[in-house]
Amino acid sequence: MADILKYIDQNKSRYEEELKAFLRIPSISTSPEHKDEVRRCAEFVRDELGRIGLNNIKIYETAGHPVVYGERLDGGKDAPTVLFYGHYDVQPVDPLDLWTNPPFEPTIIGDNIYARGSVDDKGQVWLQLKAIEAHLKTSGVLPVNVKVIIEGEEEIGSPNLDKFLSDYQELLACDTVLISDTPMFGYDLPSLCYGLRGLCYMQVEVTGPNRDLHSGFFGGAVENPINALAVMISKLKDSKGKILIDSFYDNVLPITETERKEYLKLPFDRNAFMKDLETDATPGEEGYGELERMWARPTLDCNGIWGGFTGEGAKTVLPSKAFAKISMRLVPNQTPLDIAAKFEAFFNKIKPAGVTIKVIDLHGGMPAMTPIDSAGMTAARKAMKEVFGKEPFLTREGGSIPIVNSFSQILGAPTVLMGFGLPDQNAHSPNEKMNLKNFHRGIKCGALFYQNLV
Amino acid sequence: MADILKYIDQNKSRYEEELKAFLRIPSISTSPEHKDEVRRCAEFVRDELGRIGLNNIKIYETAGHPVVYGERLDGGKDAPTVLFYGHYDVQPVDPLDLWTNPPFEPTIIGDNIYARGSVDDKGQVWLQLKAIEAHLKTSGVLPVNVKVIIEGEEEIGSPNLDKFLSDYQELLACDTVLISDTPMFGYDLPSLCYGLRGLCYMQVEVTGPNRDLHSGFFGGAVENPINALAVMISKLKDSKGKILIDSFYDNVLPITETERKEYLKLPFDRNAFMKDLETDATPGEEGYGELERMWARPTLDCNGIWGGFTGEGAKTVLPSKAFAKISMRLVPNQTPLDIAAKFEAFFNKIKPAGVTIKVIDLHGGMPAMTPIDSAGMTAARKAMKEVFGKEPFLTREGGSIPIVNSFSQILGAPTVLMGFGLPDQNAHSPNEKMNLKNFHRGIKCGALFYQNLV
Repeated sequence: MADILKYIDQNKSRYEEELKAFLRIPSISTSPEHKDEVRRCAEFVRDELGRIGLNNIKIYETAGHPVVYGERLDGGKDAPTVLFYGHYDVQPVDPLDLWTNPPFEPTIIGDNIYARGSVDDKGQVWLQLKAIEAHLKTSGVLPVNVKVIIEGEEEIGSPNLDKFLSDYQELLACDTVLISDTPMFGYDLPSLCYGLRGLCYMQVEVTGPNRDLHSGFFGGAVENPINALAVMISKLKDSKGKILIDSFYDNVLPITETERKEYLKLPFDRNAFMKDLETDATPGEEGYGELERMWARPTLDCNGIWGGFTGEGAKTVLPSKAFAKISMRLVPNQTPLDIAAKFEAFFNKIKPAGVTIKVIDLHGGMPAMTPIDSAGMTAARKAMKEVFGKEPFLTREGGSIPIVNSFSQILGAPTVLMGFGLPDQNAHSPNEKMNLKNFHRGIKCGALFYQNLV
Repeated sequence: MADILKYIDQNKSRYEEELKAFLRIPSISTSPEHKDEVRRCAEFVRDELGRIGLNNIKIYETAGHPVVYGERLDGGKDAPTVLFYGHYDVQPVDPLDLWTNPPFEPTIIGDNIYARGSVDDKGQVWLQLKAIEAHLKTSGVLPVNVKVIIEGEEEIGSPNLDKFLSDYQELLACDTVLISDTPMFGYDLPSLCYGLRGLCYMQVEVTGPNRDLHSGFFGGAVENPINALAVMISKLKDSKGKILIDSFYDNVLPITETERKEYLKLPFDRNAFMKDLETDATPGEEGYGELERMWARPTLDCNGIWGGFTGEGAKTVLPSKAFAKISMRLVPNQTPLDIAAKFEAFFNKIKPAGVTIKVIDLHGGMPAMTPIDSAGMTAARKAMKEVFGKEPFLTREGGSIPIVNSFSQILGAPTVLMGFGLPDQNAHSPNEKMNLKNFHRGIKCGALFYQNLV
C-alpha cells in the first residue's frame, strides 16, 4: 500500500486538473437544453473508466440520461465484490448572480475548488475513480472485484435507476455498495453514516358540513373540520413528544449503548444549532438527545395544512373541508405499509362525531441500516482512521436516500456511505465547493477501503 | 285602522305592479357598468317617497351610491320617531344560466314573485313604503314621526353609511330603527329577531425555525409550527365545547328562562338540519340546545388554516410558518376589543417552547340586542300577531348585521328587525323570490306597527 499512497501524493495536481475538466461540463440533468452536455459528460466518464483500466465498459441507455458502467473483476470468485455508485449529473445553477465565480469555470481559492458539482457528486466520483486508478497504475490489479455505475439522473430523483438495477441484476451483483455523496460531520471530523430513516407520508381530508357555511349562522351546532383536524393532530403526540398511534413503536430497533456512546462523542452544539435556526428550544421525544432524535428515533411532522379561507382579511366561513399532509420518519425495523395502516386506524379512532375523514397513503420508503460490524463498514472505518489519523464517528442520517433502498431491495446489498463533503459545502446552492484536502484524503480512503476488504 | 287595512286589501294588484317596476331596475351596486341604473333606482325611490306623501325628500350623495331620504313628522315633538332603513341596491345575478326567468323581468308563479331583489330588499322596502302610504292616503297623517333612509350600497357592505349617519346625526335622530330585511322562521311562522351576535376575528402566525427545513434532517429536534398551531387550537376549547380562554365568559349575558322557553317553542328539526348538511351530529357547548348555541352563546371557529406544502404529492418540508384565522362569535355584553386581548393573552400563555407567535386583530363587531319588552318590539309583536293570527316567535340570529351596530353606536337607537322573507327565498342566489302573501301581510304589519307605537 505504501506505493499506492505515494503514487496518490505524487499525482495531486493532475487529479485537480482532471477534476476541473469534469466540472467544466454543464451536465444539468433537469434541463432539456443541456441534454447534449449530459451525454457528453457520460462519454467523458466512459473514456475515463477506460483510461484508469476498467473492463467491459459501456454506456447503458435508459428512458432518460444514460448510466456508465465499468468493472474490474481481479479478485476472482471468492473475493468480495464492491459496487461503486456515483452520479455525473448536477443541479441547476440559479440564481446565477449569487455565484462569485461562474459555476462551470472551476476556481480554486484556498483549500476549496468552487464549481457546480464540485462536491455533489463529481468531486467524490473522481476521487473514487482515482482510488481505483492508483491500484491499477501501481500494482496493476485491484485486491477485490469492483464494479462501477455512474448515473446521470440522481438530481432528478433517479427515475430510471430501479429499472436499470432490475434489468442488470446479475451484472451488478455485489456484496457491498459504496457511495461517496454525503458530508462528513465536520472538517477533521471524519464520519461514516450507517443508517437512514424511512418515510411514511400520509394525507388526511376532514369533511364537516357538505358545504361552506356562514360561521355566524351555523357556528355552535356544526363540527368545524379545521378545529377537528387540529384536535386530531394534537392527539398524535403527547406533550413529551411520544407518538400515540397504537403499536407505533412495536418494531423500533432500540438505540444500543454502543450507538449512544458514539453519538455522545460527536461535538453537537445545541446553542449553535438553535442560533442557526433562530429558535429557543430543540423539543422532541423525552429521554433522547437531539442527534438520537434526528437520526435514530421515529418522528411525526405535519408537512402541510390547509382549509377554509386563506386570503387577505376576514371571511367568516365555517368550511366544509380541511386537509393535512402528515409524515412519519421511520427507523429500522418499521415499515411504511405497517405504519400507514396503524396511522389510518388511529386517525379513524380519534375522529370526533360530526366529521368524516379520508386517509391517503401518499408515499413510503424503507429505513436502511448497514451493520457497523459488517465487512464494508469495518473496511471503511479502518481506511478513514488511517488517513485522518482518528477513528471516524459513526453517524446516521435522518433523511432517506432512496437509491440505498434500491440497492438493498433489488441487489440485496448493504451500502457504505463514505462521504467527504462538509456541512458548509453549498450543495444545490450557489458557490458549491469541495475541500481539496478532503478530495485527496478521499482518494487514499478509497484505495485503502479496497485493500481492507481482503 | 279598519279603513287602513281595507285600503291595503283593495290595492293589492297595484302594489304588485309597482313592485315589478322597482324590480325591473338592475341596481347592482358592485358593478361599475350598472352605475347609471343604480342612480336611476335612487331617483325611482325618491319619486316614490314623494308620491306616498313624505316631505323633505332628498338624494344625499356619498363617496359611492346615494342615500334617499324622506320624512313625515306628523307625531310631533312628544311622539316616538321611527327611522325606517332599507336598501335599493341588489346582488349580482351570476350564474345567469341558473335563473328560470330573467332576473330583471319579475315573474309571478303561484304565490311568489321571482326577480333579483324581490326579497332582498326591494320587496321589503316596498311593503314598508306602502304601509306608510296606507296611513297617508286614508287618515292623511301618520300616528308617529317617521323618517326613511334607503341606501344603495348594502350589498357591498355599506361602506359610506357610517359617515352618512355621523354627518346627519340630528336629521336622523330617532327612538327606534325599523328594518325589514330578514327571513321569518318559516311560512306561517312569524318571528322577530331581537339579538345578533358580534364578532372578534383574529389571525395567528406561528414561526418555528427561521426557514423551511428538510423534515428528515431536522425532524425530531425542531418544533414544527403546524403541529404547534394544531395543539394550540386544540387548547382553545375543551371536549365539551367550552371555550377555555381565560375570563372568556365573564361578560356573557346568560340566556333567561323566558328566552329558553321561547326557543323551545320553535320547530327546530335536528334531523332535517343534519340531513341538509350531510352530517351525523350537531356538536357544541354542553348544556345548550342548537338554537341557543347558534344564537345566544359565543363560539370559536377556525375560518382558515395554512402552512407548509399544500400542493400535489409528498414534499418532506418541516415548515417555518403556519397560520390560522380564528374567529369568535360574541354575545351581549362581550366586546370585540376585550375578547381580542383575552385571546392574545391566552395564545401567548399556551405557546410551546421553540416557536414564536404573532396575533393580529383583523376585525371586530359588537353584539346587538333589542330588549323584548321595548316599545318597538312590543309594537312589532302586536302587529304581527294581529296579521298572522299568532304570536310571533322571538328569535336571535347568529350572525352580525353591521348596520344594526351603526344605528346603535351612532344614533343610539335599538333596531326592530321585522322581516318577511322565508328561509327558501334564494337571496344572493339564482331565482330569488318573495312570497306575495307575506308581502301583503308585511304591508299590514308595517301599518299596524306605527299605530301600536302610539
